[in-house]
This record gives sequence, structure tokens and C-alpha cells, in this order.
Amino acid sequence: KHYSAAVIPGDGIGPEVMEVGLSLLQSIADIHGGISFQTESFPWNCQYYREHGRMMPEDGLQRLRPFDVILLGAIGAPGVPDHISVWELILPIRRSFQQYVNLRPIKLLRGLESPLRYKQHDDLDFVVVRENTEGEYSNMGGRLHVGTPYELAVQNNVFTRYGIERIVRFSFELAKATGKTRLTAATKSNGINHSMPFWDEIVKEISSDYPDIETQLTHIDALSAFFVSRPESFDVVVASNLFGDILTDLGAAVVGGLGLAPSGNINPEKQYPSMFEPIHGSAPDIAGKGIANPIATLWSISMMLDHLGERELGKLVLDSIEDVLIAGEVRTPDIGGKATTRELGDAIREQLYRR
Amino acid sequence: KHYSAAVIPGDGIGPEVMEVGLSLLQSIADIHGGISFQTESFPWNCQYYREHGRMMPEDGLQRLRPFDVILLGAIGAPGVPDHISVWELILPIRRSFQQYVNLRPIKLLRGLESPLRYKQHDDLDFVVVRENTEGEYSNMGGRLHVGTPYELAVQNNVFTRYGIERIVRFSFELAKATGKTRLTAATKSNGINHSMPFWDEIVKEISSDYPDIETQLTHIDALSAFFVSRPESFDVVVASNLFGDILTDLGAAVVGGLGLAPSGNINPEKQYPSMFEPIHGSAPDIAGKGIANPIATLWSISMMLDHLGERELGKLVLDSIEDVLIAGEVRTPDIGGKATTRELGDAIREQLYRR
Ligand SMILES: CC(C)[C@H](C(=O)O)[C@@H](O)C(=O)O
Ligand SMILES: CC(C)[C@H](C(=O)O)[C@@H](O)C(=O)O
Repeated sequence: KHYSAAVIPGDGIGPEVMEVGLSLLQSIADIHGGISFQTESFPWNCQYYREHGRMMPEDGLQRLRPFDVILLGAIGAPGVPDHISVWELILPIRRSFQQYVNLRPIKLLRGLESPLRYKQHDDLDFVVVRENTEGEYSNMGGRLHVGTPYELAVQNNVFTRYGIERIVRFSFELAKATGKTRLTAATKSNGINHSMPFWDEIVKEISSDYPDIETQLTHIDALSAFFVSRPESFDVVVASNLFGDILTDLGAAVVGGLGLAPSGNINPEKQYPSMFEPIHGSAPDIAGKGIANPIATLWSISMMLDHLGERELGKLVLDSIEDVLIAGEVRTPDIGGKATTRELGDAIREQLYRR
Repeated sequence: KHYSAAVIPGDGIGPEVMEVGLSLLQSIADIHGGISFQTESFPWNCQYYREHGRMMPEDGLQRLRPFDVILLGAIGAPGVPDHISVWELILPIRRSFQQYVNLRPIKLLRGLESPLRYKQHDDLDFVVVRENTEGEYSNMGGRLHVGTPYELAVQNNVFTRYGIERIVRFSFELAKATGKTRLTAATKSNGINHSMPFWDEIVKEISSDYPDIETQLTHIDALSAFFVSRPESFDVVVASNLFGDILTDLGAAVVGGLGLAPSGNINPEKQYPSMFEPIHGSAPDIAGKGIANPIATLWSISMMLDHLGERELGKLVLDSIEDVLIAGEVRTPDIGGKATTRELGDAIREQLYRR
């Protein structure tokens, strides 16, 4: 089988981790004679913006459209405002390609220790399903009385039944398909009194179609605390765009850090390409040093393989990552070692062959 | 000196912890001959709502107005929707009395251990200043196309220059007054593109008046992760209403749990009464068992004493709490013991006399 992947290495450590990711893809094709990857790299990043005045060409989305998947490194550079780098590249891709599911596993890998004193691997193994197209990231709103003492800004959170139903239903289906019995929906209907009660209603409606799954609505403040105090109580957590964003960075922290956390921006219907990216940013502070942790990217590729239906290969990648972590000899500085990005990437690739 | 306090014990464990709080106030007056407290209790809670169809009488706010301070236990009961119990009692008090500062210390008490493996007491000692009157809790918005597949809800986040300036300035002043050098402002201007850039601008403007304080704008997702990975990097954290809500529950978790976390809803100008309340809710699951941890309430009373200018007494209360925790013999179940609410309260009161 033949898969095509559009690759956007991006800024900062993005190209460094992506280089390792692409080597991994080659090794996979090498190991599994029956499949191949055709990749095409797109130089859309903040440097491109400085040269062209935009993050991607006018027909950027059209050019990505034919690919099976998109691989993204990281976007953002000092001096280019986020509302440009993010709103002109990542968010248009998520939205135009109906990648309404942002799938983010929170799982403590074997070989690593959680910063939570009393939590073991079995306690930290769940998935957050983040709504990825609407809600708090609406782009709607503005300012009034600019420059006066009466200045104000309004930001509209926009939640549609359509948008909520599809993400909630996906989450229940995911729980069912993976044999999980608990679904937790993040809410804040005690403080946010229009959008969140609407969200709650739809969660309750849909939950009645899944009598075998225990559904819990939990306020985002308490839920954040529970990620620390009792992460073992979660199987599938579904959350709005903003709440999912917060919970997954927090989740990354409780399983050992942002250098490890993968994500898939998924269009479940496969009408459009899905995009896989590490959760971490471009990390200008360590860019160019060759010490970024490539695991978040390699794990994202593992998720990409799952999405393409190559579940055995996806598992092979994740198992190899864990093997190397258990061996413990090759680690980047963020997880307590002295290895470079490439060294850790190579160790994982070699492990693919050994398995 | 004579102080008056309106007391709203509330629902669930509220009355249980408040009983202990009121005993403590008596002991303080007893120890310090020169001061006295006049308290009046108001039975406004969900039971009151069931009987009267409202959470407090029509003139409720007027009746609270003359008091120096308000002490609140906890509000909320199964069967009464939060948008009633919260929006008709807590939020009107916070807003009408211009309690625009919600002050929430994140401090690991001596004698307790953090759930974070490598963090010590010195690593966990900062304060979150939460905006308490506007932002995401705006009460503005609504729904369209109700009951159709096209239904949608809009919630307006409303941020005013006035509202942002006063909370940010308060935070810088607090840092200065307490000899702190770092101020971190929670933002999300990369995803939320109208209100948060406005917030950022004002933070930057005001920071120029405080050249000795190092100001950092940190996205709420990363900031939540940092509460786990490097809490030692914070002195004063200022956050919007929602972000402050999330950060403080999370902060409570990393210093040992919600049973310990106090808060002050403060009107710094003292034109109106300020309100002190534990962060925890009414906890229906343990209500009536007499095992709720009273420390959050007692610490809130310590903050109340600080606010009244009785800093030595505030310190006496907090020191006594820590003494009892260090001794380690009397603890409620949430912190690993078998004591009741009253037993722990009594132990702390007895310690007041010993000090
Ligand atoms: C009850 C609820 C609305 C409240 C809030 O979010 O403000 C509570 O969580 C708090 O933190 O005081
Ligand atoms: C860059 C930013 C807008 C983005 C988000 O909040 O979605 C990032 O934090 C993420 O989680 O993918």
C-alpha cells in the first residue's frame, strides 16, 4: 500500500524533530515491504511569512487536500505574533479539513516515571478527545471604545449542536470500540451559563444511547485537580476546544512532559486529510541545539499509522519507543539524559528492526 | 476592636466546617482581649430556595452590606441547578460588593506532603490573583434555533479595560508589597484572538510601571502544565475569572487537596464587605458524616483576619494549623487520618492557646 503525507516541518525545533520522524517513516517502509510513503515537504513557517507576508500560499489548503495525511512539526517564532502564525496556518487546516477530533492520549510510557508521587502506569492511561473546530476559538468578537478608559473587548464562544453532537458521539464510540466504560465530559455550567448548559444537555442526550458507559459531567476546575489527584478515574475525557487544550497540556505534564505528548487532528470520515503533530511548540529556547525530544513526533506518527489502518505498525513504533525508554540509556535532557534528538531517534529506529 | 461578620453556612459540609470556624473566632476573641466578633448567621442555601423559590430574600444584598466581612461555607445541593444556587447567591455577592480580587494562596503547608514527587515546601508557595467580576462569567449570550439541528449557543466573554487594569494593578502592587519579583499573567492570545490580546496589552502597559518586577505572559495550557512541572517559578499569578478558577483548583491539588484551599473575595478599597470562603464545594457525598476537612475554612478565616488588619492573629491561626499538621496526630480522612471535622478544629483551637 501506498500513502502520501504532506510534511510541514515549521519553526524552531519543528524541523529537528521532523527529520527524525521522516527517517522513522523510511525505516518502516523498509521493514514492511508492502507499504511505502510518498512525502512532500512544505516550507510554510514564520520564515516563509517574513518573505511572503503570509504563512502559506493562497492555494495552500488546496495543495494539502490530496494527501492522505499531514505531518506538522511546530509553528511559531519570536517576532511573529501568534495570531498570525496560528490563525493563518494551524487553525485553517484544522477547520477546513473538518479535523473536528483532536485526539490526545495521556499515557505514562513504560520506562518513565510520573511526577505524581503515588501514580503508576496503570493509573495514567486514558485519552482526551478535544473538540477542534469551534467553541472558545471562534475568531468572533471585537473591541469598542478603543483607547479610552471605557474600552472593552468581547469574544464570542460559539457552540453548535452539530459541533457538539459529533464530538460527543465520537467520544462514546471511541469508548465503546476500545472497551472502556467511563466517559467524562468537561463542563463549567455553574459559571458559564449559556454555552456550557447547552453542552451538558447534549452530552446527556447522547449518553442515553450508550447505557453501558458511565457518563460524568465534571467542572473543568475540579477536573483539572482530578488529573493530579485521581487520574486513574478516567477512560475517555471529552472537552471543548479550550478545555481540551488546557487538559492535554496538563495531562502531558503528569505523564512526564511536553516532549512526549502526541496528537492527531482527525477527520473521522476521512473525507479530508488528518494532521498529526506533537503537542509541544517550536521551543525557540532550545531550537538549533539538537536536543529536542523527538518522541512526541514519533508517537504522533504512530497515531498516524493507526489512523491509516496500519495498527500493527503503529503499535510497533510505540512499543519501540517504550523499549528504548525502559532500556534507559538513550534519553534527551528533558527526560534526564544527555542524548541528542538524532541519537534518541536512531535508537528507536534500530529498535524497530530488532522487534 | 469590634468586627461584624455575616455568616452564610450554606449547604452540605458548609455548616459543618462553618461551625468549627465560628468556634475558632470565639477562641480568638477569648485569647486577644482587645477584639471581638459579632456574627449573624443567614440561612440562605438550597433548602431556603426550596422553601422560598429564591436563594436569598429580595433585600439579601442590602442586609449583608453593613457587615465588615462575610463568611461563606459552601453552596450547592443535588437537585438545585448550579445556575440557580451560584448565580443567585455567590456571584451577585462577588459582583455587587465589587469583590474584584479573588485571592487564592497556593502554599504547601508544613507537615503535609505534595503529591508532586520532587517538590518541597519552598517550591510551592505563591499566590493566584483571580479576576472575580467579569470575563468568561459574563451571563451574556443565549441560544438560537432551539430544538433544531441548527441550534447554537453563544456565550460572550466580556473584558473591560477598567476590569483588567484594576486586577492587574492590584497584582503588581501585591507583588511589590510582599517583596516578590515575578508576575505571571495567564493568557491564551494564540487561540482566543480578541479578548486575550487585549488582556496582554494591558498587562504590558501596566508592567512598565513596575520595572523591578519581571513580567511573563504565559498561555493557560502551558501554565497549567508548569503548575505541575515547575511551580517554583511563580510568585504572583494573575488570571481571568475562568483561568483563575481552573488554576486554583489545580493549585489546590498540587498542595494536597481541596480540603485545604482557602480564598478571599476581596474589595480592596473596603467600600463593601469582602467575603471569605473555602474553595471546595458542598461535597454532598460526605455531607453529614462530620469528616470534612475544616482547614480550608480556618485558613480562609486567617485571610479574613489579615484583611481586617489583624495580621498577627491571621498568622497565629495559620501557624496553629501548621503546628497541628506537623504533629500529625489529628487529621481528617482526606489527609490520611481518622479525625472528625470537630476533632481537627479543636486541635487547632487548642494550639492557638498554646502558642
Ligand atoms: C461555584 C463556582 C461558580 C465557583 C466559580 O467557578 O467561581 C467555584 O468554582 C469557585 O471557584 O469559587
Ligand atoms: C498554538 C495553539 C493555538 C494550539 C491550541 O491552543 O490549539 C496549541 O496550544 C495546541 O494545543 O495545539
